[in-house]
Amino acid sequence: MTTTSTQLIDSLTKIVGTDHLLFDAEELLVYECDGYIVEKKCPDVVVFPATTAEVVEVVKSCNQHEVPFVPRGAGTSLAGGCLPVGGGVMIALTRMREIHEVNVRDGYAIVDPGLVNVHLTREVTPDGFHYAPDPSSQGACTIGGNVATNSGGPHTLKYGVTVNHVIGIEVVLPDGTIANWGGAAGMPAGFDLTGLFVGSEGTFGVCTRATVRLTRNPAAYRTMLAIFDDIQTATRAISEIIGAGIIPAALELMDQGIIHAVEAAFKFGFPLDAGAVVLIEVDGLEVSVDDEASQIMALCQQVGVREMRTANSPAERQLLWKCRKQAFGAIGRLSPSFCTQDGVVPRTRLPEILEFIEETSRKFDIRIVNVFHAGDGNIHPILLFDERDKEQMQRVIEAGDDILNKCIELGGSVTGEHGIGVEKINFMPKLFTKDDLQVMQEIREVFNPDGNCSPCKMLPTAGACGMEHIERSHPGRQAAM
Amino acid sequence: MTTTSTQLIDSLTKIVGTDHLLFDAEELLVYECDGYIVEKKCPDVVVFPATTAEVVEVVKSCNQHEVPFVPRGAGTSLAGGCLPVGGGVMIALTRMREIHEVNVRDGYAIVDPGLVNVHLTREVTPDGFHYAPDPSSQGACTIGGNVATNSGGPHTLKYGVTVNHVIGIEVVLPDGTIANWGGAAGMPAGFDLTGLFVGSEGTFGVCTRATVRLTRNPAAYRTMLAIFDDIQTATRAISEIIGAGIIPAALELMDQGIIHAVEAAFKFGFPLDAGAVVLIEVDGLEVSVDDEASQIMALCQQVGVREMRTANSPAERQLLWKCRKQAFGAIGRLSPSFCTQDGVVPRTRLPEILEFIEETSRKFDIRIVNVFHAGDGNIHPILLFDERDKEQMQRVIEAGDDILNKCIELGGSVTGEHGIGVEKINFMPKLFTKDDLQVMQEIREVFNPDGNCSPCKMLPTAGACGMEHIERSHPGRQAAM
Repeated sequence: MTTTSTQLIDSLTKIVGTDHLLFDAEELLVYECDGYIVEKKCPDVVVFPATTAEVVEVVKSCNQHEVPFVPRGAGTSLAGGCLPVGGGVMIALTRMREIHEVNVRDGYAIVDPGLVNVHLTREVTPDGFHYAPDPSSQGACTIGGNVATNSGGPHTLKYGVTVNHVIGIEVVLPDGTIANWGGAAGMPAGFDLTGLFVGSEGTFGVCTRATVRLTRNPAAYRTMLAIFDDIQTATRAISEIIGAGIIPAALELMDQGIIHAVEAAFKFGFPLDAGAVVLIEVDGLEVSVDDEASQIMALCQQVGVREMRTANSPAERQLLWKCRKQAFGAIGRLSPSFCTQDGVVPRTRLPEILEFIEETSRKFDIRIVNVFHAGDGNIHPILLFDERDKEQMQRVIEAGDDILNKCIELGGSVTGEHGIGVEKINFMPKLFTKDDLQVMQEIREVFNPDGNCSPCKMLPTAGACGMEHIERSHPGRQAAM
Repeated sequence: MTTTSTQLIDSLTKIVGTDHLLFDAEELLVYECDGYIVEKKCPDVVVFPATTAEVVEVVKSCNQHEVPFVPRGAGTSLAGGCLPVGGGVMIALTRMREIHEVNVRDGYAIVDPGLVNVHLTREVTPDGFHYAPDPSSQGACTIGGNVATNSGGPHTLKYGVTVNHVIGIEVVLPDGTIANWGGAAGMPAGFDLTGLFVGSEGTFGVCTRATVRLTRNPAAYRTMLAIFDDIQTATRAISEIIGAGIIPAALELMDQGIIHAVEAAFKFGFPLDAGAVVLIEVDGLEVSVDDEASQIMALCQQVGVREMRTANSPAERQLLWKCRKQAFGAIGRLSPSFCTQDGVVPRTRLPEILEFIEETSRKFDIRIVNVFHAGDGNIHPILLFDERDKEQMQRVIEAGDDILNKCIELGGSVTGEHGIGVEKINFMPKLFTKDDLQVMQEIREVFNPDGNCSPCKMLPTAGACGMEHIERSHPGRQAAM
């Protein structure tokens, strides 16, 4: 260990206490990656502050020792958003998980960044409210991580993404000063700094508190399962539903591969020979949901659905949602490792991208299964592989890249909700002009002039660790680090 | 006229042709103010480009002659958003009013900045869609102006403000380069530059095209009028409705002063002795609107409504909305001039701010009437005066300032939807810390490093025309210019 490291660790220990930092190589292993297991990199230290004041001190100490830092929530990023690319200090916010205020009358809550997403919903359930953004990982992921990546979820179609639900934030800027943007009144004046921060993937500082909207629970739900012989008919049905002006609360497609995995895990009774199932939920007033549900059923019949089922009890609804939300976990049954891709196409181009995914699967000899937010055109092809087979892993990366390039070609984007992280940093020049990237870099420099905070996330960071990522020609090599 | 001016006018004439620019003092008078009549300032030239390419050339010409420029839509800003504070060239975008694409299947349209808001809705009405943001001025105001100020409207409560409906923009940056951010797929990667631009009040460049969401028309409406003896009971009813988890499509309060004015203008049959009327609209499926309407009526009865009326035909609904939307016009019957203020308080603080407005009216001996988006806590006290009475105008400004200061004190903000413009630039230091203002200035500098584009809007511009505004001690003097 270098002298700097020793001094830094001494300094951090003084801030958070000996129980709240890790620097042993073995302990750090837990933090070498997040949900994106293709690349790995250990931080030098992981520190667990308990308060905003401690975060400030940690950031100042990092600056003093000229060591980069990166915030981390639960580490559920699927794009390497928590990877400490430049090494240095990882600021884990999991001890900061309090709910400071709940105001159902004005419809907001003020929470810590380390609060687990679903814990907020549980807290306000007795009042008849919930927190709307609900990523699949909502049982583990944190509000701070959701803010960083502008998370979505199945209910995004009707209720929007995180930026639509965050109305104020407290941020420790990269120089250690505290900023407060927005707030409970919700209507901003001036430039929308809160909106700009949401989705900036930790490159503008560390979110240490968030004021979020609470959403009143709908009075009634109807949750249906539409079973199709093939995926093309399923996407046609989705297109008809949206085209008819219905906005379901959720419209989630699972293909045959996923059906097999979740059926093995949860025994819901999915037919194993179906080409696709679509989970459809409408919500609203008791009197309106039946009406919408019948319209949806009629539209599905028109395009040739094989069978429609309805959840007949809250328990059945819960189980159906469990199948969908834990689909990713169930994939463990299919393969030792998997990479969940995230892309967007205009809704009407879904059939094309799904066909392309099939072709890509054949071309690279990589099994790909699909579960996704069909109503948004937000696809999640899941590429199955064995991490120990480096050559196969290389094919996974190439196949994923091909799919994302196709998304761009179809007028879409390379991320709907997972963010750029380290995984997609090379796509930025394909998505944006040189001028636009320059603008983004300059905006980052307003907040983060030295690039010390979350280097090499979203945008390459000059002079930091940029080059290894820009030149990522053999990512398998990095994954082996 | 100076040599520079002559050269500039020659250069602009070459770009747009002699028919499309104005520089005679008399013709310029039309452009000396917008809907905020308290301050006036003529531009040196008004130019009317027809294409993005012409906007680029105009901007480059301004830069070459070191003359500031400011974009303008229909000039309906109520905060002096179009005032050419620094003089120079006004780029009027009213000739750019085409609808380039309507795609109801994917739910978007691509339009010119000078397109009148309601013209877009009319275009897509046969398809059963509309453009959701609907400011009172929607019959005149432009999409570009809506983008600049992040406009709201009565339907903001349920459908959100402009930023929720703009998914992509083309911008001519202050150096004359063209940027394209976002697009039809709607899901951004990277920093949300589209979201940042919306509401930046022309300080980042000139919006020359926008991709906006189209919203499917609800199947049914119920439009009600609740008549109250006093304004306190009315705000209590509003609080009960929202507290019950109902989100009406609109919840608009008009006080006695407004009732008199609109009744005189439209003869709807408003009772002239009522303290307040609330226009309430719910929308959705046919089966659900009756249910919500009855709930609302029951809640109003509980708090002691005097009378509830329901619009019994589309024609009656239209008339009711006409009363509300043209309330501002009707005020012309009450007073030669008026100033519509714009503030926000948390919904639960509405009774306090309304009481304060009454006190302020008495204190400054200025008649104030109220019409506002009650569901959002977005107040619009309208201060009546005679422009020719400079001393009275000074009291109007002071009374308005007092009300806005009170909004801040109650945890709100000084603008809900009109923007900062020149009117509220002095409030920025009260709303934001020095650090935050610095951050905003630096962000503006990323796009607008010379401050040549819309100087002195939203933030003071160093070295431009900042001082006269920062030191606005006798605004009446400026209004007399």
